[in-house]
Amino acid sequence: MVPIPAQLNPPQRVLLGPGPSDVAPSVLSALARPTIGHLDPRFLAVMDELKAMQREVMRTKNELTLPMSGTGSAGMETCLVNLIQPGDAVLIGVNGVFGTRMCDVARRAGAEVTAVEAEWGRALAPEAFRAAAGRKRFALLCAVHAETSTGALTDVGALREVADELGALLVVDCVTSLGGLPVELDGWRVDAAYSGTQKCLSCPPGLSPISFAEQAAERLRTRQRPVQSWYLDLGMIASYWGSERVYHHTAPINMLYGLHEALRLVLEEGLEARWQRHRRNARALWAGLEALGLELLVPEPERLAPLTAVRVPEGVDELAVRRFLLANHSIEIGGGLGPLKGRVWPIGLMGAGSTRRNVELCLAALRAALRAQGQRPPADPLEATGEVYDV
Amino acid sequence: MVPIPAQLNPPQRVLLGPGPSDVAPSVLSALARPTIGHLDPRFLAVMDELKAMQREVMRTKNELTLPMSGTGSAGMETCLVNLIQPGDAVLIGVNGVFGTRMCDVARRAGAEVTAVEAEWGRALAPEAFRAAAGRKRFALLCAVHAETSTGALTDVGALREVADELGALLVVDCVTSLGGLPVELDGWRVDAAYSGTQKCLSCPPGLSPISFAEQAAERLRTRQRPVQSWYLDLGMIASYWGSERVYHHTAPINMLYGLHEALRLVLEEGLEARWQRHRRNARALWAGLEALGLELLVPEPERLAPLTAVRVPEGVDELAVRRFLLANHSIEIGGGLGPLKGRVWPIGLMGAGSTRRNVELCLAALRAALRAQGQRPPADPLEATGEVYDV
Repeated sequence: MVPIPAQLNPPQRVLLGPGPSDVAPSVLSALARPTIGHLDPRFLAVMDELKAMQREVMRTKNELTLPMSGTGSAGMETCLVNLIQPGDAVLIGVNGVFGTRMCDVARRAGAEVTAVEAEWGRALAPEAFRAAAGRKRFALLCAVHAETSTGALTDVGALREVADELGALLVVDCVTSLGGLPVELDGWRVDAAYSGTQKCLSCPPGLSPISFAEQAAERLRTRQRPVQSWYLDLGMIASYWGSERVYHHTAPINMLYGLHEALRLVLEEGLEARWQRHRRNARALWAGLEALGLELLVPEPERLAPLTAVRVPEGVDELAVRRFLLANHSIEIGGGLGPLKGRVWPIGLMGAGSTRRNVELCLAALRAALRAQGQRPPADPLEATGEVYDV
Repeated sequence: MVPIPAQLNPPQRVLLGPGPSDVAPSVLSALARPTIGHLDPRFLAVMDELKAMQREVMRTKNELTLPMSGTGSAGMETCLVNLIQPGDAVLIGVNGVFGTRMCDVARRAGAEVTAVEAEWGRALAPEAFRAAAGRKRFALLCAVHAETSTGALTDVGALREVADELGALLVVDCVTSLGGLPVELDGWRVDAAYSGTQKCLSCPPGLSPISFAEQAAERLRTRQRPVQSWYLDLGMIASYWGSERVYHHTAPINMLYGLHEALRLVLEEGLEARWQRHRRNARALWAGLEALGLELLVPEPERLAPLTAVRVPEGVDELAVRRFLLANHSIEIGGGLGPLKGRVWPIGLMGAGSTRRNVELCLAALRAALRAQGQRPPADPLEATGEVYDV
């Protein structure tokens, strides 16, 4: 017998990493509401509200719009395994960890993958997709809208034309963009998209909002082989979320309460206002970081508002800086992923965490951490950030 | 624009269906604790406590013991896709919905499935497995310990010998048994097992505790082909839950807080005491149901304490009864699954919901519902239930 641990008492962090982001108090409270059954009429009403709100936030009228019972990576796998049949040719943009992950998931589903490579930290241009495709036809064209590992934004709307030329469905990862940057599924004619809850929606991790447009739903309905994953089989899941209410798996009730409140908060603020807030606070952060003498990985036109990758300066122990921030300021920032591990700090200003206060906390703490590393940052990075406040 | 829905205010139900079960208040509070990062040292300590407690509750020393980021069905798929390679022969006991589901999941992973059929509502005997196997060898022998759809208990410990004869790993579904009935992974030499959180552990749905013994872990390490699911690839997930802490997907932080508290409560009560409580309250329920003139589907020696399937009497509108219970008593019971849909009411006394008070509420409410249906149940079913109280 091990001793029984004490009740949990996690610290109150300031979450400025690549996710999870700070969660609004009303979302945390929603998680603790009484659990009810997954076929309770009161819960079915919650599901209908969830679908309607998710459509608003994703800017789509797609009927097949619902949260999957897993994190963003489960949403990625859902889109790929439901749309891929073995032998399908799939074209995937790779400019970071999540494009790389898409290739891995697609290959496991039996796809013939063609990767469209770009430098990590840069956007992927439509021409790169055209060049990699040659004159072949593809079942899917997949791209990451906001690459969490680098902070680079790809104009996925511009990929629609390429997808049409290749006869491909357009599949988009909007994990880090949804709720923080314009995402226009219908406006861009995206065929399938997935997101996560723990970035700009500011709900704890555990769910993945997905949406399939009619052409993707048709591809799913007419496939010859069963979807290789039972848990992520969207045909069956749609029968539970649709009017038939056929039991598939037990829905994660309390997590869905949390998402309900998180989507409510997004709509109460208004999407445009929320995008502007993310943009405004990101600009203040960028100015302050540059005033500290730090370099940003991504050139400004391709840079994400919700997530900024900062180059670790020569001679600085990046792990020591992160430990300093956590120990002395209870601030979490990221440590870089894949080939960028240890070379950049991803700093997130996402959802409820995108505030002027967090910009100031982050800059002041980072300055102190750099001084502790023997660097000599200038005295007041806040001067550079302008005078716009969100409170 | 749809109107923005109001904040959720779900009712306080008495959850006596096949799951989710009533959740203890301290588990709900734990869900609402501040979200921290999935690589925060404080969270890594939570993970270590979770693994240690899960081992105690599953009665195993298996290193590879952790909660998967999905519901019980994701746990089922995890066990099967990590252990099956295309063409593998797999022997699966089928005496209800969840054995049937295992066949579906295994076939999607490319297995050649041999189903061992038994009447729905009865246990599966070792002899049935031997007979179905013929003299063939199998990669896996799979069985459901506690069939949620019927309430029948299969002695999975007795299947070890059969698995050894067939050269098979023994894979066990303990979704409805874990925390409510004796589950002895090491004592029974189970190779792989999965459970769910929303049954006798009384945590909201969303996670699946799984455990792989050394032989199963070895099978995973030495497989030729990558696991078909990226999200459920246990090799990669073990690197995050192990000392390497390699990022795979973002862990569902707040759900894991809930499971931490739920496991704590199980260990504080003590497993034996908890099993006895489930048994005691089930006996009282059975006596009361029979006093009401109702028939139970499963013969007593094979009946589950946490879940009892009651036959719907001739001439009774089963849906009207469930609606009556929900509307007038806020009590949820089940409606039956698959071929038993509409023919039985599964009644769960699981985890925090296994109380004398719930036995009494259930019997009194069921009596009122039957009277509303024009039946003439005897006056006092509680007299039959004896005098043992848990408060």
